[in-house]
Amino acid sequence: MPTGYNGKILRVDLSEGKIWTEEPEEVIYRRYLGGGAMACYYLLNELKPKIDPLSPENILIFMTSVINGTNIPGANRYSAAAKSPLTGGYGESEAGGWWGPELKSAGFDGIIIQGKADHPVYLWVHDGEAEIRDAKKQWGKLSGEVQDGLEEELADNRIRVLQTGVAGENLVKYAAIVNPLRHYHGRTGLGAVMGSKNLKAIAVRGSKRMQPNDPQAAREVLNWFRENYDRENDGMHLYGTSRGIPSLNAGGILPTRNFHDGSFEHADDISGQTMAATILKRRGTCYGCTVACKREVEVPELGVIPKYGGPEYETIAAVGSLCNIGNLKVIAKANQLINQHVLDSISTGAVIAFAMECYENGILTKEDTGGIELTFGNEDALLKIIPMIGRREGIGDLLADGVKIAAAKIGKGAEKYALHVKGQELPMHEPRGKTSLALAYSMSPTGADHMEAPHDVFFDSFNPQSNPLGALGLIEPVDALDLSHRKVRAYYYCQLAWGLYNCIGMCDFVAAPIGALSLEQLVKYVNAVTGWDTSLWEVLKVAERSNNMYRIFNFREEFTKADDTLPERLFEELGNGALEGEKIDRQEFKEALELYYQMAGWDMATGFPTKAKLMELELEWAVSE
Amino acid sequence: MPTGYNGKILRVDLSEGKIWTEEPEEVIYRRYLGGGAMACYYLLNELKPKIDPLSPENILIFMTSVINGTNIPGANRYSAAAKSPLTGGYGESEAGGWWGPELKSAGFDGIIIQGKADHPVYLWVHDGEAEIRDAKKQWGKLSGEVQDGLEEELADNRIRVLQTGVAGENLVKYAAIVNPLRHYHGRTGLGAVMGSKNLKAIAVRGSKRMQPNDPQAAREVLNWFRENYDRENDGMHLYGTSRGIPSLNAGGILPTRNFHDGSFEHADDISGQTMAATILKRRGTCYGCTVACKREVEVPELGVIPKYGGPEYETIAAVGSLCNIGNLKVIAKANQLINQHVLDSISTGAVIAFAMECYENGILTKEDTGGIELTFGNEDALLKIIPMIGRREGIGDLLADGVKIAAAKIGKGAEKYALHVKGQELPMHEPRGKTSLALAYSMSPTGADHMEAPHDVFFDSFNPQSNPLGALGLIEPVDALDLSHRKVRAYYYCQLAWGLYNCIGMCDFVAAPIGALSLEQLVKYVNAVTGWDTSLWEVLKVAERSNNMYRIFNFREEFTKADDTLPERLFEELGNGALEGEKIDRQEFKEALELYYQMAGWDMATGFPTKAKLMELELEWAVSE
Repeated sequence: MPTGYNGKILRVDLSEGKIWTEEPEEVIYRRYLGGGAMACYYLLNELKPKIDPLSPENILIFMTSVINGTNIPGANRYSAAAKSPLTGGYGESEAGGWWGPELKSAGFDGIIIQGKADHPVYLWVHDGEAEIRDAKKQWGKLSGEVQDGLEEELADNRIRVLQTGVAGENLVKYAAIVNPLRHYHGRTGLGAVMGSKNLKAIAVRGSKRMQPNDPQAAREVLNWFRENYDRENDGMHLYGTSRGIPSLNAGGILPTRNFHDGSFEHADDISGQTMAATILKRRGTCYGCTVACKREVEVPELGVIPKYGGPEYETIAAVGSLCNIGNLKVIAKANQLINQHVLDSISTGAVIAFAMECYENGILTKEDTGGIELTFGNEDALLKIIPMIGRREGIGDLLADGVKIAAAKIGKGAEKYALHVKGQELPMHEPRGKTSLALAYSMSPTGADHMEAPHDVFFDSFNPQSNPLGALGLIEPVDALDLSHRKVRAYYYCQLAWGLYNCIGMCDFVAAPIGALSLEQLVKYVNAVTGWDTSLWEVLKVAERSNNMYRIFNFREEFTKADDTLPERLFEELGNGALEGEKIDRQEFKEALELYYQMAGWDMATGFPTKAKLMELELEWAVSE
Repeated sequence: MPTGYNGKILRVDLSEGKIWTEEPEEVIYRRYLGGGAMACYYLLNELKPKIDPLSPENILIFMTSVINGTNIPGANRYSAAAKSPLTGGYGESEAGGWWGPELKSAGFDGIIIQGKADHPVYLWVHDGEAEIRDAKKQWGKLSGEVQDGLEEELADNRIRVLQTGVAGENLVKYAAIVNPLRHYHGRTGLGAVMGSKNLKAIAVRGSKRMQPNDPQAAREVLNWFRENYDRENDGMHLYGTSRGIPSLNAGGILPTRNFHDGSFEHADDISGQTMAATILKRRGTCYGCTVACKREVEVPELGVIPKYGGPEYETIAAVGSLCNIGNLKVIAKANQLINQHVLDSISTGAVIAFAMECYENGILTKEDTGGIELTFGNEDALLKIIPMIGRREGIGDLLADGVKIAAAKIGKGAEKYALHVKGQELPMHEPRGKTSLALAYSMSPTGADHMEAPHDVFFDSFNPQSNPLGALGLIEPVDALDLSHRKVRAYYYCQLAWGLYNCIGMCDFVAAPIGALSLEQLVKYVNAVTGWDTSLWEVLKVAERSNNMYRIFNFREEFTKADDTLPERLFEELGNGALEGEKIDRQEFKEALELYYQMAGWDMATGFPTKAKLMELELEWAVSE
């Protein structure tokens, strides 16, 4: 039965206008699986340290995985990776959607792009072929126009277009990359890397669907999923990612007014439930996925059309509660503007909330904003400022560099309102009420990130018989506010599972603990597709390997353990809500980090992986001396 | 479906004549599974450090597992554990056979015995009941007589009798424990602990067979095993554990003449193939096992009868090649004598080989031996001296303490012939030709031990698609002589699998990599039996937990990392054979140990588990300060 796994990588040198392919040995696929691990494997091997991330020397990688493009729900995700212009360290961001499976169908597991084109170009990849084509006509256009333009040019409305936007062209440090208009590589500013290379888009079309090695075994997992997934009662399907806003708000952990507060007066007005009852037009989905958590909304009076999908939780909180805006229609409009310019909605909302708090405290003035009254809750200001960021116009130019650089330029104590780690803005989850996020935000290789591990809410219901994380040995509950060794351990183990998702290209809304697909079924599926005999042990070691590789990447860029930190505000009391007065304890946090280092096999003095950890993970190649 | 796992432990206080039961919480079963982990859990909780192992304060534990007694081949194994009189550290030894499943059928997962009876007694355990009965009649008898006597006394020839022998009564430091006459807890001298408690035997009879929670899922694993196991071509079935003697000899790694040599002139004469062609009467087996690797031999002219089974590889090499004896019939007789007195055959052979080398070098004389010419190859001397050890008669008294103490008593440089680690004699595998044994022997918590991991011969055939250890991520071959980080890593991972076998009670001749049952099928079976959702990840963490517990046990007894060492001879050149001149490199060995410590999460300076490793494994309870 086992026939193994073979795949091809498309290589592109934009400076030279050269295209070629390479076929990694099977052992590379088994050791890295795909996604972040495989991308970072190439970056550590080929990217020179300390280059300017917006120079032609940066390398931009899109990487699917061994199971991407097969029929299991959730396995449509793939990674984009490069040196991040936002953090100066490892940049990686996953997207779902349709582009990854299409790339697999076109015969490639990934694309590695180096150099810089001397004029705007796009890549056209189709059934084993690839060509670099002129994109001057698409430059400067909004994302929907680019999609339409390329469909017309290639005379094919079934192409899948991945593109950066106006924001990427203008090197906004948190410019994103999107595939068919709705699925975002949001974080770490990879859109600016794409823009810096004059690469506007990658259009893909393939006709050869991935077939598992063992179709019967693959079907068994699909059947298991069908039997265990109850869509009609899945809040994720019914109300989307913003289904949890009412309960987050009730728990006092809905980021509000730039993380000053944890409770928002208009929370119910911006929830997924309200969306379903008002502006929701259709539910959308990704390739092969029955969960269908995506939204398509319509607000005719504001020109919001379903073409651009609808706002996710992160977007709603970032431009909503974080900016003190409780009008879902305005939020939907802001979302569309962000999407049209292809920005990271988290950083965009966070930057605006930062600016609003600066404004309210007199650190930014009308003079700075060009007359915009940038107060918390000002809907017009929100909608006006987003395109300005995308185009680096007026104050948008300052804000396009992210809160860290903007605060440094503004001075006057603005830094206290700049909520970021390693230069990346905080996502919409409150570490003071879910302490595992204190670990995630501080230690994530990409700066503040909420996709490192499940949040504490999932640690409540462990029992020794059956629970979604039992397979990790997490069989007893850990309190959401606990930041002791119990939390460090649970975080460390869970991080391996979520790291796995980023390598294997699996959506956490489908997989455990959020979704129905158990870790063991996922492993069974990997074996069915590849013909291997891998185990949860081995694939979690891939995730651990990837996390150590990211660490190596950052230390090559002169990050140190001093960069594993949190913004001051999180050590201060939450301003309102059910957890009013709650804060991260500085000493507990310090001890938790040290314990994590030791648990992860990292030197406690330096925070760098020990020799033994590198050798255990077969990473001796990745370290020079 | 998941209904969980419940079990009972039988508690016995021989000083007080008290018997009671306790029911561990399910979380304890899930975190420790059984065997060594569960036994050490109780020892760390209840055994006072630094007691005399032969005093009433020692605690003797017999522990099965959550799957013991079910129908999967190999799951009949269980652990005996106590503080070892041979090493002064953690004592543990596994046996297969019939007693473990019978104990489960009688309603108990394990027995914990404390105190000391004021006269010889035995325990009679039957269907949830237990009683302490007088054993004066059995005291001083050979094992076969004890078996017969108890069957007669209890008027039941289907009882399963576990007993210590004359050697245990006489506190021979490597006295063993046997269940139905053929299945040995050979190592670490636990028979002496049993003898010191005046506990002659434990007879068991049960009528309630273990039923899996999910019989259908359990059947699937059994079917899988049947389809994947080819008994008619399994050397283990055909020729038993000594099937490998010819190839070990050809490879130069058959321990010969007290480890001076690696090749033995009469190797073929003592092989399993020769046994099958000459003295083999029948093949024997353990509960539920189709492999049937056990032998029953008959040598009428020497009074060797099938009742005592037949010699295993370890025995054949220990009293054969190691003592320069190439007569299989004499070896079979020696085996029977060892079994009748219930000795550890490895230590017995090793002690005699030691004495022979001392004798040949004039360090022991005819005066010391009471006239026995104790030269290498002297068959009469071999057969004469075994009962003398068992009864501590003449030179047997000196040798009954093992090579470490005997060498110290003899002086005159005898120590260089005393091949032991931590006081336990080397088993019959050559570290100079299979370097993973250098790691196993030096670091095993029980002293030199060959059951810590598969030996290097299994590391030859890894490939990324399918191999028996692929599930551990070991997908590339490591050379048998390599002692670099590659070997340390392979050893560290494999040790987790073999540690699992000692906790779950699985025979490595059935399970991967030696047998047919893959690690993933084993996990599936554990879930079918218990109703849990555990994974290879979680159960390997149980093994890692157990290994750290053993380490804690030994450090409580004032062992240090200086005790992780090898006898000098292994740093010297092998005397003959295919690997003549091969030796362990001292510097490589030192670096390998240090790398192992760091890889295992042990402090490199002290060799003790780091705080983070203890907390990762939920072992904070096991360390006092």
